Amino acid sequence: MKFLPLFDRVLVERFTAETVTKGGIMLPEKSQGKVLQATVVAVGPGTVTKKGDMQPVSVKVGEKVLLPEYGGTKIVLEDKDYFLFRDGDILGKYIE
Amino acid sequence: MKFLPLFDRVLVERFTAETVTKGGIMLPEKSQGKVLQATVVAVGPGTVTKKGDMQPVSVKVGEKVLLPEYGGTKIVLEDKDYFLFRDGDILGKYIE
Amino acid sequence: MKFLPLFDRVLVERFTAETVTKGGIMLPEKSQGKVLQATVVAVGPGTVTKKGDMQPVSVKVGEKVLLPEYGGTKIVLEDKDYFLFRDGDILGKYIE
Amino acid sequence: MKFLPLFDRVLVERFTAETVTKGGIMLPEKSQGKVLQATVVAVGPGTVTKKGDMQPVSVKVGEKVLLPEYGGTKIVLEDKDYFLFRDGDILGKYIE
Amino acid sequence: MKFLPLFDRVLVERFTAETVTKGGIMLPEKSQGKVLQATVVAVGPGTVTKKGDMQPVSVKVGEKVLLPEYGGTKIVLEDKDYFLFRDGDILGKYIE
Amino acid sequence: MKFLPLFDRVLVERFTAETVTKGGIMLPEKSQGKVLQATVVAVGPGTVTKKGDMQPVSVKVGEKVLLPEYGGTKIVLEDKDYFLFRDGDILGKYIE
Amino acid sequence: MKFLPLFDRVLVERFTAETVTKGGIMLPEKSQGKVLQATVVAVGPGTVTKKGDMQPVSVKVGEKVLLPEYGGTKIVLEDKDYFLFRDGDILGKYIE
Repeated sequence: MKFLPLFDRVLVERFTAETVTKGGIMLPEKSQGKVLQATVVAVGPGTVTKKGDMQPVSVKVGEKVLLPEYGGTKIVLEDKDYFLFRDGDILGKYIE
Repeated sequence: MKFLPLFDRVLVERFTAETVTKGGIMLPEKSQGKVLQATVVAVGPGTVTKKGDMQPVSVKVGEKVLLPEYGGTKIVLEDKDYFLFRDGDILGKYIE
Repeated sequence: MKFLPLFDRVLVERFTAETVTKGGIMLPEKSQGKVLQATVVAVGPGTVTKKGDMQPVSVKVGEKVLLPEYGGTKIVLEDKDYFLFRDGDILGKYIE
Repeated sequence: MKFLPLFDRVLVERFTAETVTKGGIMLPEKSQGKVLQATVVAVGPGTVTKKGDMQPVSVKVGEKVLLPEYGGTKIVLEDKDYFLFRDGDILGKYIE
Repeated sequence: MKFLPLFDRVLVERFTAETVTKGGIMLPEKSQGKVLQATVVAVGPGTVTKKGDMQPVSVKVGEKVLLPEYGGTKIVLEDKDYFLFRDGDILGKYIE
Repeated sequence: MKFLPLFDRVLVERFTAETVTKGGIMLPEKSQGKVLQATVVAVGPGTVTKKGDMQPVSVKVGEKVLLPEYGGTKIVLEDKDYFLFRDGDILGKYIE
Repeated sequence: MKFLPLFDRVLVERFTAETVTKGGIMLPEKSQGKVLQATVVAVGPGTVTKKGDMQPVSVKVGEKVLLPEYGGTKIVLEDKDYFLFRDGDILGKYIE
């Protein structure tokens, strides 16, 4: 069973927070920065424009994106944390 | 007598909350998480777009959907609890 | 003399509150639930869309509807209480 | 000299408050209900729609209307009180 | 040098407040009502509609208008007080 | 190097405040009124309308304009104070 | 790996704050003004207009722009600070 976001929602999985410094010291959870990089896991079909056309979302599954610091909805699928963001709230993407 | 939501409203029935842990211990009501999974029971006809066309809702009767944590209107039909959500507030759906 | 709502307003008459329990005990007014079922008594002509067409309301005189818990304007016509709701605020209707 | 409301404004004159009960007792001003029935005295030309057409107001001079309990602008013309309401704020009209 | 309002702004000059009662008693400034009648002195070219046409303002230079009690921007031109109002905020005009 | 405002922004330079009264008395800074007259120094290209056309701003470089009392963004270019206003916030212009 | 802003977002790099006065005195960080000049580093593809066309942003990579005093989102790319602004929030650009 797969989860499909509706409208212009984008399901992302945040990168794992670094828990060990480069020098090998373990970081307590509080010192770990909020991870804003994420991978797109699923995208909604987009929104219907006023002209009646479907406006697809601007990111694709598998792309690496930069999330805003606030916002997004945490959802749990099979005991794993994901986040839903509106397409328009995603700041940008990393391209090769 | 059947209930038909108006406009882009979607009538859902939440999944039953788990009242017993996997280990067999009964959970007090407070410890039971809010159930966000629901089944679509009835859908409105949609909304009329600015071009005058009917824009149908994005979910169908029988589909399993993920609800937002807040919002929705509880309504009681034949002593059973249902919830009305705007189509655009439903986060996503589960597909096979 | 008849009352005609303007625009997309809908005039409804709420069902009578149950004042006696199934067991025959009279309920004090405070214990009577707020009645959300109502019958449509009169409807406005609708609103003009941006394309210039008249968009009629989605309910008809005589239909049974479900009202939202809050909102609506109480008006008194010939010593009887009625309520005006915007078409878009009516949650749904009961169909046979 | 005549007063002409601009845009979708409607000039109304409220019905006279009943100052004597059916039994002939004079009511002090405080006990007199706010009169919500009014007669349309003058109407504005309407508003221009996005398509560029003039959208006339939905009431005509001489019609009896039901006013909302709040809102409206009191204006005095030749020592007489009138009220200006936006066409869309008038709840409905009484027709024969 | 002349002042030309921009967009849908209307420049008005309020009527002079009555400083003497009909009986000939001079009124202190506090007792003088706020004057809401004004003469249109200059009008802006109007606003461009979504269709790209110029929508002229609804009053003309020289017309007598009724101002709302609040709002408007006082401007001083050659030591004389004038007021700028948006065309849509002017309540109505007096016609012969 | 020249500064070009973006969209419908207008760059203005305020007239110099009068620091000496007509009678020749120097005014302390506090007594100097806020100068609302300004000269247009640069204008943005305008905004794109919904129809896709460029809607130019309503003032031209060199024109004398009346600014609103509040608003505007002070910017410093080569140690001189200028102010940026949205075209729609400029109250009017002085024409010969 | 390159960062690509989405929609009408513009990635800028602020000019370096002057840390030494013209007279050669080092400025403590507090006395250093907020730098509002920046260079455009990357631009989003723009936004889709209601007519369905792509409306590109109004600045180009390499252009010098003037930022508003508040707003913008700080993002860190390869240990360097950048800022994301909406195209419409950038005040103007410097042209030769």
